[in-house]
Amino acid sequence: MFNKYNIIVVGGGHAGCEAAAAAANMGSSVLLITMNMATIAQMSCNPAMGGVAKGQIVREIDAMGGYSGIIADKTTIQFRMLNRSKGPAMWSPRTQNDRMRFAEEWRLQLESMPNVDIWQDTVKEIRVYNGKACGVVTSLGLTIDSDAVILTNGTFLNGTIHIGEKRLGGGRTAEKAATGLTEQLVSLGFESGRMKTGTPPRVDGRSLDYTRMEEQWGDEDRGRFSFTDVELPTEQRCCWITYTNEAVHETLKEGFEKSPMFTGRIKGLGPRYCPSIEDKINRFAERDRHQIFVEPEGWKTVEIYVNGFSTSLPEDVQHKALRLIPGFEKAKMFRPGYAIEYDYFPPMQLDLTLETHRVKHLFFAGQINGTTGYEEAASQGFIAGVNAHQRINDLHELILKRSESYIGVLIDDLVTKGTEEPYRMFTSRAEHRLLLRQDNADVRLTPIAHQLGLVSDERLDLVKQKAAAADHIVEYLRKQSVGLDEMNPILAELQSSPITQKNKLFTILTRPQVNIYDLAKADTTLAQLIARSDKDIVEQAEIKVKYESYFEKEIEIVNKMKRMEDHEINPYFDYSTLVSLSKEAREKLIKVKPRTIGQASRISGVSPSDISVLMVHLS
Amino acid sequence: MFNKYNIIVVGGGHAGCEAAAAAANMGSSVLLITMNMATIAQMSCNPAMGGVAKGQIVREIDAMGGYSGIIADKTTIQFRMLNRSKGPAMWSPRTQNDRMRFAEEWRLQLESMPNVDIWQDTVKEIRVYNGKACGVVTSLGLTIDSDAVILTNGTFLNGTIHIGEKRLGGGRTAEKAATGLTEQLVSLGFESGRMKTGTPPRVDGRSLDYTRMEEQWGDEDRGRFSFTDVELPTEQRCCWITYTNEAVHETLKEGFEKSPMFTGRIKGLGPRYCPSIEDKINRFAERDRHQIFVEPEGWKTVEIYVNGFSTSLPEDVQHKALRLIPGFEKAKMFRPGYAIEYDYFPPMQLDLTLETHRVKHLFFAGQINGTTGYEEAASQGFIAGVNAHQRINDLHELILKRSESYIGVLIDDLVTKGTEEPYRMFTSRAEHRLLLRQDNADVRLTPIAHQLGLVSDERLDLVKQKAAAADHIVEYLRKQSVGLDEMNPILAELQSSPITQKNKLFTILTRPQVNIYDLAKADTTLAQLIARSDKDIVEQAEIKVKYESYFEKEIEIVNKMKRMEDHEINPYFDYSTLVSLSKEAREKLIKVKPRTIGQASRISGVSPSDISVLMVHLS
Repeated sequence: MFNKYNIIVVGGGHAGCEAAAAAANMGSSVLLITMNMATIAQMSCNPAMGGVAKGQIVREIDAMGGYSGIIADKTTIQFRMLNRSKGPAMWSPRTQNDRMRFAEEWRLQLESMPNVDIWQDTVKEIRVYNGKACGVVTSLGLTIDSDAVILTNGTFLNGTIHIGEKRLGGGRTAEKAATGLTEQLVSLGFESGRMKTGTPPRVDGRSLDYTRMEEQWGDEDRGRFSFTDVELPTEQRCCWITYTNEAVHETLKEGFEKSPMFTGRIKGLGPRYCPSIEDKINRFAERDRHQIFVEPEGWKTVEIYVNGFSTSLPEDVQHKALRLIPGFEKAKMFRPGYAIEYDYFPPMQLDLTLETHRVKHLFFAGQINGTTGYEEAASQGFIAGVNAHQRINDLHELILKRSESYIGVLIDDLVTKGTEEPYRMFTSRAEHRLLLRQDNADVRLTPIAHQLGLVSDERLDLVKQKAAAADHIVEYLRKQSVGLDEMNPILAELQSSPITQKNKLFTILTRPQVNIYDLAKADTTLAQLIARSDKDIVEQAEIKVKYESYFEKEIEIVNKMKRMEDHEINPYFDYSTLVSLSKEAREKLIKVKPRTIGQASRISGVSPSDISVLMVHLS
Repeated sequence: MFNKYNIIVVGGGHAGCEAAAAAANMGSSVLLITMNMATIAQMSCNPAMGGVAKGQIVREIDAMGGYSGIIADKTTIQFRMLNRSKGPAMWSPRTQNDRMRFAEEWRLQLESMPNVDIWQDTVKEIRVYNGKACGVVTSLGLTIDSDAVILTNGTFLNGTIHIGEKRLGGGRTAEKAATGLTEQLVSLGFESGRMKTGTPPRVDGRSLDYTRMEEQWGDEDRGRFSFTDVELPTEQRCCWITYTNEAVHETLKEGFEKSPMFTGRIKGLGPRYCPSIEDKINRFAERDRHQIFVEPEGWKTVEIYVNGFSTSLPEDVQHKALRLIPGFEKAKMFRPGYAIEYDYFPPMQLDLTLETHRVKHLFFAGQINGTTGYEEAASQGFIAGVNAHQRINDLHELILKRSESYIGVLIDDLVTKGTEEPYRMFTSRAEHRLLLRQDNADVRLTPIAHQLGLVSDERLDLVKQKAAAADHIVEYLRKQSVGLDEMNPILAELQSSPITQKNKLFTILTRPQVNIYDLAKADTTLAQLIARSDKDIVEQAEIKVKYESYFEKEIEIVNKMKRMEDHEINPYFDYSTLVSLSKEAREKLIKVKPRTIGQASRISGVSPSDISVLMVHLS
């Protein structure tokens, strides 16, 4: 019934969609198998994309020709650049999105791709021949052949939903779970585990009193995720902020004895940095309030997502506690929050390409690898899609370095260290975060994507032009001086000390109080340069000047590490013969199969002396 | 957690949405409980509304203030008035709709109604106290109180999906079934049965060759369902027609041995007039082809609904046979067709108000009553919604007569005769169909809805004005004569015989070749009258003139029947004492509890002599 496909993608969430799109754009024929075509690219949790470190990931995906940024931009109901007051490494774009539009746009995107077919069904089994994935068997009993398979099952593998003492089967509320696949993979020798995540109640916006909350509007001068020309919705919607209080906490505590978290019914670990409200009041007992973000689910719907109030307490406790929050006194719930437990596969079983060690041509991406977050999932999907294509065509794999992308950090962390609780990206996880900014994701990654054929020559040229234009401004600032008469009145206004002699514009711009537009008032050539340039380019130039010394130091560090990061190891090297390694190091190295000395050095249990042994032996 | 509601509606399909909206508009507080808020008002089967007899029902719902027509109009991708070449009783509006937009518009409609709350959950049990429904228990374990309950469970009660020899639980593909409720109702003494329906495969429009099919465009001068001012999409999309052939039939036959229909695995009866393709080639073996309507699922999606190819044969047989249809040579399926079996409750257990005999304040609407079709479901939902409100407020019930509406015919048929296969409306079911036209649904029903408070004074005035304006034109035609010089050249052009003396315009208009615009060429006053009037009004006047004699005869018949239809019986009359009734009549009368002698006379097994006995006794 089906011809053989190059690649089968199992699951139509953020990971599956990016995987299918990337592989198809590389030239592979792709079959996306989803349980329900009506729920492709459903945002299961909050109606938002990006945020701290996550916004950077979306920009990185976009820079390489993925679609998460484009879809998010098209369906944005509010945009904010978080952390504007901090250094540029912390700036993080975030959007609120229309949940229904987001899913629809992704589906239309996939439908527009000639290499992508879609089939509604559930995969029960991976077909393996000679240690290689070669297709799937579905619950309709179909056998479909392929050269590679990418699993992106999200929370559906043996999904169990918990609300208080109630337990329901399902991969999301009101949807079925997927059974059978975990068991087959375990029978093939894979190790599986159990994780937990959760979601807050949804309420009827008509029942809220917004006058009792703080308004939160989007940026007036709004940005975007995509480096491409996406048409953005022109209006933005308001969100609101409110707070829990001690009465809310006391009420929630009444439900603790029925909590599936605290009574041990939930075995899997939940996301530490995206805790349930009961977790928060438990772990941070000293805090008398927690912030609640009141987020509309779309342009027109009255449904509201109560961000910050994720919970699996009994629904009556949720309801009673909610109503003690200012503005929620008459809140009507549409559906309760819940926790969901699901199977994942500890990611140390994967190569840096996201291919499994155990079964060749089988790739895992998204929550199945123990991550949490749309952005983390989407980026893994993208990488798996590219690498599946490269693998079956014997082409060079795509492994992003920790020093060049958050995505590289994410995958290196997962594969090298594993994770026992849902892994979420933070800026602190990236040792070179000063270099991994949202503003330069295109400069960092578009050339790599271009080499793979994922972005056009035109797009690469634009990136180069943009970088050159920024450099041009920087060079001007570097060589051009400004006199006391022109500069000092402006500095006085900015409450910055006057200059006592002619000074380079560059030097003055390194002052925290001064921005490039202030300088332009003192130098007409600069003013003209700025007027002729895109806002992005001017910003880029300013960042380069202000943080040049930091960047230089960071690049120095990267270069020092380079020797180790570039020192490749055959991942299938036989460590058992290396008796001078510690026993633990030997075991871990055999398990992780690091690609470089750098990666080996990050494995927990591999000591500096083990690394010395390796370096001596391998060089 | 919940305050008591006046009315709980279980299910968010066509019946549930209309029920909730109607009850809310009457002034009741309503809780709509749906398994999944994301699938409210899903068109489970074809992406279309209306059609022969069904279009009339949509117009009737609209005339009374329901929303099916409005939602369909807003989401129309193609409009056609079917049967234009036949008499006006046969004219039937039909739309193709955007499936996603239709669902979204319904949800936004409900969200805009202050009296409607929504809760996502599954109802497991109806709470009954003193023989009266007083709330529900949900699968989350919640008890929610109400004065009345309306069940609109569609195909979800113990739904089982069949594809070839495979059997899957579910209320629709990829959705869960609802369990527990049937069992509880049976334990309360309800009789339940099993029915079956089916749906065709969905295919990828990109894989079809439309040049091998016939185009089918919508009406250029497009109409609409709603009598209100809905803004209509301006563009229409093309549909296509193609045909099966003997090769297709032979291929399908190869699957018969695995057909759940033919091997007896499906016990429930399917819709006779909406048969599966295997049924068609089985029952109409003499036909060498069947028509296939190729219907887009929306404005933008490439998904195609293969109308006319409903099947539960194994998916590989579906696929192989599909590809033998002209234009489908390379067709790729998105999902296979399937059959679904579900529980229904034979509708003789209901009163004409759709309240159950057995449990007061409990109403059933839609497929749970053994009907098929969105329009049939929606209209029952509307009536149940109104009557639930009236019942709990001790107000007059809404029972539409067979002589005034298709909805009246539908409910009288169901309640009086029951049904053992999915009941679908046809014009032939309505003995007074000449009077039950789509064009006069507002004249027939808006006054009734106005009395109930469902439509505004303004809307009623508009209907009256429209009728008066049409009458004004008719009166003019009736009194105004036209001479030979003016009329005969026009008649010659129309190939209608010349008049030999002055003649009333009215008389000339009764000629089949002549329409009112032809007459206007001969009479400037008429031309001005027409120019000043809405198209609908002119059409109305023309219909009145052309068919006056038929309508008069029909009204005479209605009046003759009136004596029986108006002769009320106490539905709880004790027939057991009436020994002169036949045994069968007595049993049936006790079961059906007819409201009038007319209804009693339609019960199968009640003979004219039984009716005589009744009339003698009751008068």
